[in-house]
Amino acid sequence: MEKSEGIEKENGTVEEKQSFKDGSICGYDSLQRLLSANLKPQIFQEVSRLLLGLNCGRPLETIVPPESAIALSSKHDFDLQAFSFSADKELLREPRVVRVGLIQNSIALPTTAPFLDQKKAIFKKLRPIIDAAGASGVNILCLQEAWMMPFAFCTREKRWCEFAEPDNGESTQFLQEFACKYNMVIINPILERDVNHGETLWNTAIIIGNHGNIIGKHRKNHIPRVGDFNESTYYMEGNTGHPVFETAYGKIAVNICYGRHHPLNWLAFGLNGAEIVFNPSATVGELSEPMWPIEARNAAIANSYFVGSINRVGTEIFPNPFTSGDGKPEHPDFGHFYGSSHFSAPDASCTPSLSRYKDGLLISDMDLNLCRQLKDKWGFRMTARYELYADILARYLKPDFEPQVIPDPLLHKKSS
Amino acid sequence: MEKSEGIEKENGTVEEKQSFKDGSICGYDSLQRLLSANLKPQIFQEVSRLLLGLNCGRPLETIVPPESAIALSSKHDFDLQAFSFSADKELLREPRVVRVGLIQNSIALPTTAPFLDQKKAIFKKLRPIIDAAGASGVNILCLQEAWMMPFAFCTREKRWCEFAEPDNGESTQFLQEFACKYNMVIINPILERDVNHGETLWNTAIIIGNHGNIIGKHRKNHIPRVGDFNESTYYMEGNTGHPVFETAYGKIAVNICYGRHHPLNWLAFGLNGAEIVFNPSATVGELSEPMWPIEARNAAIANSYFVGSINRVGTEIFPNPFTSGDGKPEHPDFGHFYGSSHFSAPDASCTPSLSRYKDGLLISDMDLNLCRQLKDKWGFRMTARYELYADILARYLKPDFEPQVIPDPLLHKKSS
Repeated sequence: MEKSEGIEKENGTVEEKQSFKDGSICGYDSLQRLLSANLKPQIFQEVSRLLLGLNCGRPLETIVPPESAIALSSKHDFDLQAFSFSADKELLREPRVVRVGLIQNSIALPTTAPFLDQKKAIFKKLRPIIDAAGASGVNILCLQEAWMMPFAFCTREKRWCEFAEPDNGESTQFLQEFACKYNMVIINPILERDVNHGETLWNTAIIIGNHGNIIGKHRKNHIPRVGDFNESTYYMEGNTGHPVFETAYGKIAVNICYGRHHPLNWLAFGLNGAEIVFNPSATVGELSEPMWPIEARNAAIANSYFVGSINRVGTEIFPNPFTSGDGKPEHPDFGHFYGSSHFSAPDASCTPSLSRYKDGLLISDMDLNLCRQLKDKWGFRMTARYELYADILARYLKPDFEPQVIPDPLLHKKSS
Repeated sequence: MEKSEGIEKENGTVEEKQSFKDGSICGYDSLQRLLSANLKPQIFQEVSRLLLGLNCGRPLETIVPPESAIALSSKHDFDLQAFSFSADKELLREPRVVRVGLIQNSIALPTTAPFLDQKKAIFKKLRPIIDAAGASGVNILCLQEAWMMPFAFCTREKRWCEFAEPDNGESTQFLQEFACKYNMVIINPILERDVNHGETLWNTAIIIGNHGNIIGKHRKNHIPRVGDFNESTYYMEGNTGHPVFETAYGKIAVNICYGRHHPLNWLAFGLNGAEIVFNPSATVGELSEPMWPIEARNAAIANSYFVGSINRVGTEIFPNPFTSGDGKPEHPDFGHFYGSSHFSAPDASCTPSLSRYKDGLLISDMDLNLCRQLKDKWGFRMTARYELYADILARYLKPDFEPQVIPDPLLHKKSS
């Protein structure tokens, strides 16, 4: 990807500027908006139908958020979009519509600011966005991965460990207030410090109930060792299994960041009964942007549940330059976190994505009855033949696993 | 999806006509061509980069097929596109570039014609397309699911069973000639009749080696019971496991049609060492078109191998109308098979798709070294924690499986 001109903003992030050069294009806000601005309406509609998977006769409706939420988004300059997935009306069950929110954000102060100031500035920045969610009647809200700090794991510097908090620390306390105020379940993904186990660090999502109580937590199952994702320097694979949290608004689970590349991780949350799985993430353009629209939607289809995908935004500049294991010169940033948070539904549809550059709140209504409707329609559970896979995985784990390979006998004759 | 005007063609299929009405659009040839015709070049380039996943600095190059292949495609009116995925140059291994081809086609005669005539007409129709693949130097060629017959399973009529052949029957013999002539591995997906096991039917892919020998076969693992896919009326779940065939040109496997909805099925072929997995399919627009670009690409990403996806084209009209279990009136067709065959690569990129309406041959070069390069880069195998999943699947199989659910204690207090 070619570099575009950068504008240094007051929070220390760099925002790319919309520009065209040499046949390339940078800085557009989202694929959906780029297409909308450049296609005739009826062609845009058809392209959207295909790209958003709106092929089943179920339209994705746009919701107008309340005036107060719109006013907050204007005043504090965050993207605000709201949609509604529909489901078939059933004869024996009432609809179970829940309103779900996702928040993406950049950091609020340069990474050179005192750590406590950085954290408090993020709290201050998030306050109006969470208020907008509350004003919009959101039932379940999820924040991005390690939202209370810069994503400093690229540096490999241990001083960033100071941002870690116990599961009932100040970030949790900050969100518990909102949970009570708005009768809202909030998922709080932080860098956790486990004081009772020798100050161990974890990448953890804490589930706060709609009365402000802590329901439980989940620790990230799969830890990346790729590019600047030096996360295994800071924490190890989680030890909490694949819990599903039964909240006032439905059964939810959290697949943290890199876990989205593992279909088995998605599967296990599904086997445990999840109806919505959140994927709070932090990921950058050149590495993962082509995968971003694929993996979440595939998980929603394959497991007949909803997925809420969140990615942070902006480019975070660190005080000390570092190398990236790619032979290139040292540099002070991780690359551009491209936002693009979105929802995926079990019927293969999805919402448009939030901005690639701005903070944002994405809201969608979803009738959780759709999960079982898709199970009944497609029968993926019924036809899954799990016994075959329990068997091959058990065999694969053995050091002397022999793959099922059928060689062409003529091939071996020729080469011998 | 709104209906468009139909043109009855001589082969008994109906081709939709390009038309705009009431803000909807029908009959465009492919998403890629629709966007290409309606976006400015530099915007089309950026949209293509995102949609085809060309984000890793590795461009997808277009190949010009030989004159003789182009002449065949013009004379016989089939879509012909050719591309090349690139990989990094390695220092200890030579590139392992193979040229792979996919063929999609409609049936050749009305379904009311005598069965033998129908089959021979398909043979005749495929001959120039296979010749074009041979002339283009294709090393491995895959045909669509049950290519030698109409996809009659929607009818539930047993008379279509007559199309079934033994694994060394006339379709295999027809293709063995081409395999020898062009030194080409050919995957031959047919309706199989297993004479040695009481005339049992299977949905089978036979792997023909590049010397015309039969290397082995794979039987479809997962059988749909959805909409008009009444396939379980005709054949049962396959009994051949997840074989990988070691051919002169690489290790290949076949995930037949509905198996693409099962991430575990894709996974097992990967665990057994596949470098290219073919997905010969037959699927229709309203049911699966939104899933089509998602599942194959996700499989390629998650398992670090190439995927070749094939879907038949056209609308097949059957003699006796049938109902579809949706309360709607009887009708004589299954819907439109939307073609759109394409390749996906392990780096999340993919080729544009073949036409939604025309027969076609899609060719792509792929350096199989890319598979291991992506395994080394992303480490999905290393970080997969298979022991967790062998365990949960073993537990899930038990009738008394208890999902890992953590309830909100306040929720139960309130409701009791």
